[in-house]
Amino acid sequence: MSDSFSSYLKERCKTVDRALNGYLPQARTRPGTIHEAMRYSLFAGGKRLRPILSLAAAEACGGNLEEALAPASAVECIHTYSLIHDDLPCMDDDDLRRGMPTSHVKYGEGIAVLTGDALLTIAFEILAQTPPTKRYDVGAYVTELATASGSRHLIGGQVMDLEGEGSDVLLSPPQLKFIHQSKTAALLTASIRLGAMTANVTPGKLEALTVYGQSLGLAFQVIDDILDVTQTSEKLGKSAGKDEATNKSTYPALFGLEKSRKEAARLTKKAHEALKPFGKKGQRLGEIAEYLLNRDY
Amino acid sequence: MSDSFSSYLKERCKTVDRALNGYLPQARTRPGTIHEAMRYSLFAGGKRLRPILSLAAAEACGGNLEEALAPASAVECIHTYSLIHDDLPCMDDDDLRRGMPTSHVKYGEGIAVLTGDALLTIAFEILAQTPPTKRYDVGAYVTELATASGSRHLIGGQVMDLEGEGSDVLLSPPQLKFIHQSKTAALLTASIRLGAMTANVTPGKLEALTVYGQSLGLAFQVIDDILDVTQTSEKLGKSAGKDEATNKSTYPALFGLEKSRKEAARLTKKAHEALKPFGKKGQRLGEIAEYLLNRDY
Repeated sequence: MSDSFSSYLKERCKTVDRALNGYLPQARTRPGTIHEAMRYSLFAGGKRLRPILSLAAAEACGGNLEEALAPASAVECIHTYSLIHDDLPCMDDDDLRRGMPTSHVKYGEGIAVLTGDALLTIAFEILAQTPPTKRYDVGAYVTELATASGSRHLIGGQVMDLEGEGSDVLLSPPQLKFIHQSKTAALLTASIRLGAMTANVTPGKLEALTVYGQSLGLAFQVIDDILDVTQTSEKLGKSAGKDEATNKSTYPALFGLEKSRKEAARLTKKAHEALKPFGKKGQRLGEIAEYLLNRDY
Repeated sequence: MSDSFSSYLKERCKTVDRALNGYLPQARTRPGTIHEAMRYSLFAGGKRLRPILSLAAAEACGGNLEEALAPASAVECIHTYSLIHDDLPCMDDDDLRRGMPTSHVKYGEGIAVLTGDALLTIAFEILAQTPPTKRYDVGAYVTELATASGSRHLIGGQVMDLEGEGSDVLLSPPQLKFIHQSKTAALLTASIRLGAMTANVTPGKLEALTVYGQSLGLAFQVIDDILDVTQTSEKLGKSAGKDEATNKSTYPALFGLEKSRKEAARLTKKAHEALKPFGKKGQRLGEIAEYLLNRDY
């Protein structure tokens, strides 16, 4: 990773954190427990990938950062809520997330469920503050986010994941791709599209960014599965080796490590190609795709 | 309850059910489990109080039913999600709701959490389809619903409820009122306000309806607490006598039954008074307040 890209990511992280801090109620707001718990998970050191993609997409379309801050913050709230609920004992039962105790370990299961609910709800409260453009109104923003995070995509993917657990039969490749598209690619793509929409993106460019997002999202999940096999829990900040231990259907389990790495590279190349219409303005989006391919945590 | 009011309620229930059926994905939509579970809880025979209030408020403001169907359906999705999550073992741990097994008893805890999440998410997807008026756009609708169901109101009330459980100390009257306002009155009031907003209500009348909603909401919760003491589980369709068994702070526990009944009547009178600016058009809203005061389940 080049120095300039690394400082770009750091600077964007700070911008996102500042925005989130402004949108979230203060920790002492009554009732204090829930507002403290919302902030605990939201400021636990996430990479802010989704909001950074929103901001980069807005800039690739000639828009400005300020107007993309609301959707950027909203998608991070959705992502964080989904992690809190996925970590619950009745789901993936994880004690560690981003190297820290998960929400239910720290606050108890009841508060963890409610904290997820509250982050999901505030995502829409924040999103409603996005300025409309000539082509897109708040209705379009809300439809975009609700669809991507609803029962047919983000939540649907987790349902299929949950149902596949403990099963002896590995999923077929199309089934696995469907889960990856739902669980990971849909929200990543919505993050990008929402950023672009705040810049009044043309339908043609929105379509190109959708291809970029889908490819990036699938690559992201393939790499995640590879890292679960090859890295330590310490490095990942979450429990490694879990997929194999639970006999989970993953790319490495279905195709082996080498073929999985090739697939991730192929998808990343497809993401790059989708950026052609953006020329120089798409540079950051291209760098993000490259960075995700080569990450080791 | 007069025959004409009773058939009004039945007819409105059918209208709401038809709208919800149209907005919800078919049960066979992939993945089937979640869509079946969403429909199981949503069509479990609820009284549809909140959506009926949305429709009645729209009519009281000279609007029409059709345009209030989206917010009416959205508030029912929020109400149903909150029941599913409240019933979880890590919260109130209830096996019975509306006389049927609760979501986690039927589908397991993981799917119940995700079903609640999905209903919460689709509420905003549905709400985004509400036609804007001269005074109110989709942003205003989304802000209204997200605020009422967020961490400072609906979810906040459940947090305080959860924290009060198992405590030997009864809450103070102002604390109890704060919980009731958050947990019950906020969403009821938002249901009414959203319906009125689809009819392009004036700020003055919106304020009057807010007073009506707050009073009705508090009365509703006082009556709920009374019924928990005086009725059987069979009659209520949920576990009766639970508040006393868990030493929960309620109006009857703090003030006794007689004083609680008087308070419910006083609040209902206040709701009626708030309807004066609506004249004959506010008749249904008045009848609903009367019906809630005199209900026995």
